[in-house]
Amino acid sequence: MNIPSKLIEDAVTEISRLPGIGKKTALRLALYLLKQHEANTEALALAIMRMRTEIRYCKTCHNISDDEECSICMSHRRDGTIICVVEDIRDVLAIENTNQFQGKYHVLGGVISPIQGIGPEELKIESLLLRVEAAAQKDPIQEVILALSATMEGDTTSFYLAKKLKEKEVRVSSIARGIPVGGELEFTDEVTLGRSIMTRTNYATE
Amino acid sequence: MNIPSKLIEDAVTEISRLPGIGKKTALRLALYLLKQHEANTEALALAIMRMRTEIRYCKTCHNISDDEECSICMSHRRDGTIICVVEDIRDVLAIENTNQFQGKYHVLGGVISPIQGIGPEELKIESLLLRVEAAAQKDPIQEVILALSATMEGDTTSFYLAKKLKEKEVRVSSIARGIPVGGELEFTDEVTLGRSIMTRTNYATE
Repeated sequence: MNIPSKLIEDAVTEISRLPGIGKKTALRLALYLLKQHEANTEALALAIMRMRTEIRYCKTCHNISDDEECSICMSHRRDGTIICVVEDIRDVLAIENTNQFQGKYHVLGGVISPIQGIGPEELKIESLLLRVEAAAQKDPIQEVILALSATMEGDTTSFYLAKKLKEKEVRVSSIARGIPVGGELEFTDEVTLGRSIMTRTNYATE
Repeated sequence: MNIPSKLIEDAVTEISRLPGIGKKTALRLALYLLKQHEANTEALALAIMRMRTEIRYCKTCHNISDDEECSICMSHRRDGTIICVVEDIRDVLAIENTNQFQGKYHVLGGVISPIQGIGPEELKIESLLLRVEAAAQKDPIQEVILALSATMEGDTTSFYLAKKLKEKEVRVSSIARGIPVGGELEFTDEVTLGRSIMTRTNYATE
């Protein structure tokens, strides 16, 4: 693609660095911005710059936060004795949307992935262990729920965490793996189906 | 979605104003930027701002340009007696990519669309007529090729332009409508097929 303007070419190059956006989409977005008021582009540029430079992370759970501690960690209505460990901020948002969890979170910032060169040190694992330890004195953490992806990397990370947490005398659980609600048996892969039979739960009649 | 940070929420709102990008994708892009170096976000913000504020349009053909006149209009190797009329800048890029056109362009900036409130005055139609007139004295324009979309709005605009250009004693042509290369007859709609028979061309044996 031979764009007759260096300015647009630069913008297209930068926009196409974003994940899932190719050169063609980037050009479409750039031309869209050109058609809009200058103030709109300014607002966009300013918002992403401010977000990048001013964002802070909660010192306790590493969730995104505008303050030193996030609103979930500061809330007295949330149960601080249950910690749900997730991979990133999107998972916190997803679980919050279910309204099924009243405890607090711990955001790892990724999962262990030797292929991508991510080891346990790159993640907030040490911080989780320290958090469990620190709480042990006054208000012990009862349970750590591992809510990581059901992928190889997620499972590896869960296994690693479970082993480390075992020494801390805390119940370690994992979110249920099984047939998704609405899923049909015949279209479920055998690993999921097999696991869902092995880890069957008592049928609640109430 | 309840994002626990005003900064991210603002960025997501701004990003999701872009066409084809919803709240979920915007959040994914925002979180991606947060994971990258600050310099990357700065480069992105600066590139789109510079593009928006410093871009210029060619005074002759209204194509994007870094100078007063675009590189195509300034080129002496392009045939200035043939003008290809297109809807927007992307069409110029698409036609340039074919390497089949050696004339110059005229970018209308849209097509006539009463539904969207776009009349002939909103487009660079007057400028096209003046351009044809001005050239008539020294180096007359021989042909105006209408290369607009094969939609109702495109056809309306072509019809309007053809009528206006008729008074100027210039050949007006339209890019061929027909079966796309690689297209199969049985899957072609009847309007296209009917038109392709009506506007059949002599078979070139050479």
